[in-house]
Amino acid sequence: MPKISRTGLSVPASPIRKLVPYAEEAKRRGVHVYHLNIGQPDIPTPDGALAAIRAIDVRTIAYTHSAGIASYREGLAQFYTRRGLPLAAGQIIVTTGGSEAILMGMLATCDKGDQIIVPEPYYANYNGFAAEAGVEIVPVRSFIDDDFALPPIAEFEKLVTDRTRAILICNPNNPTGYLYSPEELRQLREIVLKHDLFLMADEVYSDFCYDGATHCSVLSLDGMDEHVIMMDSISKRFSMCGARIGALVSRNPAVIDAALRMGQARLCAPYAGQVAAEAALHTPEDYFATVHDEYKARRDFMVHALRGMEGVKCPLPRGAFYTIAELPVDDADRFAQWMLEHFEYKGSTVMVAPASGFYAAPETGRHQVRLAYVLNIDDLKGAMEALEAGLKTYPGRTC
Amino acid sequence: MPKISRTGLSVPASPIRKLVPYAEEAKRRGVHVYHLNIGQPDIPTPDGALAAIRAIDVRTIAYTHSAGIASYREGLAQFYTRRGLPLAAGQIIVTTGGSEAILMGMLATCDKGDQIIVPEPYYANYNGFAAEAGVEIVPVRSFIDDDFALPPIAEFEKLVTDRTRAILICNPNNPTGYLYSPEELRQLREIVLKHDLFLMADEVYSDFCYDGATHCSVLSLDGMDEHVIMMDSISKRFSMCGARIGALVSRNPAVIDAALRMGQARLCAPYAGQVAAEAALHTPEDYFATVHDEYKARRDFMVHALRGMEGVKCPLPRGAFYTIAELPVDDADRFAQWMLEHFEYKGSTVMVAPASGFYAAPETGRHQVRLAYVLNIDDLKGAMEALEAGLKTYPGRTC
Ligand SMILES: Cc1ncc(COP(=O)(O)O)c(C=O)c1O
Ligand SMILES: Cc1ncc(COP(=O)(O)O)c(C=O)c1O
Repeated sequence: MPKISRTGLSVPASPIRKLVPYAEEAKRRGVHVYHLNIGQPDIPTPDGALAAIRAIDVRTIAYTHSAGIASYREGLAQFYTRRGLPLAAGQIIVTTGGSEAILMGMLATCDKGDQIIVPEPYYANYNGFAAEAGVEIVPVRSFIDDDFALPPIAEFEKLVTDRTRAILICNPNNPTGYLYSPEELRQLREIVLKHDLFLMADEVYSDFCYDGATHCSVLSLDGMDEHVIMMDSISKRFSMCGARIGALVSRNPAVIDAALRMGQARLCAPYAGQVAAEAALHTPEDYFATVHDEYKARRDFMVHALRGMEGVKCPLPRGAFYTIAELPVDDADRFAQWMLEHFEYKGSTVMVAPASGFYAAPETGRHQVRLAYVLNIDDLKGAMEALEAGLKTYPGRTC
Repeated sequence: MPKISRTGLSVPASPIRKLVPYAEEAKRRGVHVYHLNIGQPDIPTPDGALAAIRAIDVRTIAYTHSAGIASYREGLAQFYTRRGLPLAAGQIIVTTGGSEAILMGMLATCDKGDQIIVPEPYYANYNGFAAEAGVEIVPVRSFIDDDFALPPIAEFEKLVTDRTRAILICNPNNPTGYLYSPEELRQLREIVLKHDLFLMADEVYSDFCYDGATHCSVLSLDGMDEHVIMMDSISKRFSMCGARIGALVSRNPAVIDAALRMGQARLCAPYAGQVAAEAALHTPEDYFATVHDEYKARRDFMVHALRGMEGVKCPLPRGAFYTIAELPVDDADRFAQWMLEHFEYKGSTVMVAPASGFYAAPETGRHQVRLAYVLNIDDLKGAMEALEAGLKTYPGRTC
């Protein structure tokens, strides 16, 4: 019987995969499960995008151009340009979700065995893409007591080897919600130029910034055109995760050429998703304002509730829609499972993502969980009550 | 300035990429270009599939399950089972096109530097996926004078090394149109079992078989459950290339588990495509009959026309919608470019795919082109007339 490759074996299961059967079992028992474990927003997709899908009237759903539908690429270039990031259509490859853009970015910059430095905790699926690309992720740790700010550049410097090809950041960050400052990005610029690296930035949450903070894209850094690769997505911007449309953006023509060739190999990104994405470019500004206000209210509510729980530590994240909280528990994996398996409060319980999956060494995140504030305030209220009650009853409580 | 990886550089450009500007230039001159160079069918997508897209009425286009929408996986399992291939939903991972299934299959079976034996000429994009996966494709040559039948098993045997992990066939074949016989598959079974390899079969053209021939899937081979991985797609079956829906099918649970973990990393296949694919499962049988008859007529017409041209050699392919023809020209790449750059006949010209891109050593296909019979007979007629006239006038003609 032939064996699965080491590559195949090393793509990790989703961090919450072990929990899913317990959540299903809880539902079978009639317990309501609040899902704070995933970044699936409940916000409606813009009407224009949905209408565009319903208006599709081609006779044959054909392949599009491998780089994306020309008018969509053009519209996206204008969208970035309006936001202060001057770009041309030829600097954009439309991808199948931000996910594909990340994989393409790794493949275009790294050979098998090469390294990418990534602040941790980081988006768990980077591990999967890295395993597929044969790339080694070298974590540089950020800390909850610093609100998960960028680690000092000296810490990056220590990790640079002759196999380092890139630094990858996620800004605003999933799982921490941290929004990098222009000053932090300038620090990254220094080290990237010094060691002639690529700077890859996963900016799929760029629309989600709070407290008046504005997002600073790596594409706005001076003298970095050859170095910068930005990964974008409409999944969160337009609450259209299932459309599977993202983009790889770079002013380095060799990067675009490599991404285009990979794009040609897989033929094209989904047609209906691109049609919806193009229509979504005309979403009125008040959509973003409404979404912003909604998420800000949710964040404020959730962080306030968490900070009110005994023994819980939680930063105030200024971006995305996640936060990492430190809980007074022996083991967050065990706690998460216990909440689903043994606990209910007023007929409900909460599913959280243990943070172990977001650290290169799972042990590091042992007392932390990631919470996504993707539910409306009423549901968040129920979820926070259940979480607080759970923490009080959990046998492995540590304080 | 940081360098693109060797991986990124080694993903080849599409075989026809160099020709595209010449085709565009021809169109600008007002010349009509018959596209026999790509496998984009003009057949209408089934009404039910289009209607399902137009009927999408969710408020939020959310991620689906990473393995695919449960009811679609279930429906697909029944579809295969009805066709004599008993399968359960759990043996299917819904992918973003057959393309993604091929990449996943390579990653699940091979580590960097491992080898896959592939009969050549082969689908050029296998080179791109192999470069991405760090896999080496080892070609075993098939010949036009044998109608591109399976090379003798002794030829495969000679190529097996301790790094060989799989044999990959495409059945029916793109670019040759060859349909492997049950006997040929049994021969592959022998060698696969003997050397404990995987047998991967790209069966995206399984619906396109002519002259009463039936498709024999690798999934029907006895005692091969652990060894077989089948890649499927709705792109051609339902003329829905832009939907980007395919499937990786295997009865080996370790393969499915690896594919699922890769699927979780990239989150999910496109929602609208899956909705359309599920609806397409209810396409009435007469759709297939009509499509079959249409392609058979096109094939007959095209092959007959080619065989009538002086110095042209062309097998009668029994599957897919391509044929490879040998032309009396010094160099098929040069001829293809010349047809676009310097030739027109009654205001039209033809774009063909030089076969060099389908051979591991481009030199091998120097006198061959691939022709896709994806146009209606009237257009094919114009195309064949222009091709014949072009061959007569081409300065590099060799007979
Ligand atoms: C940090 C981050 N990057 C990338 C993605 C990929 O998103 P998509 O492939 O849907 O664009 C996600 C999705 O949750 C994410 O959280
Ligand atoms: C032989 C072969 N395999 C796979 C594919 C991939 O098709 P898709 O990704 O659209 O399913 C194609 C498309 O032309 C093909 O010809």
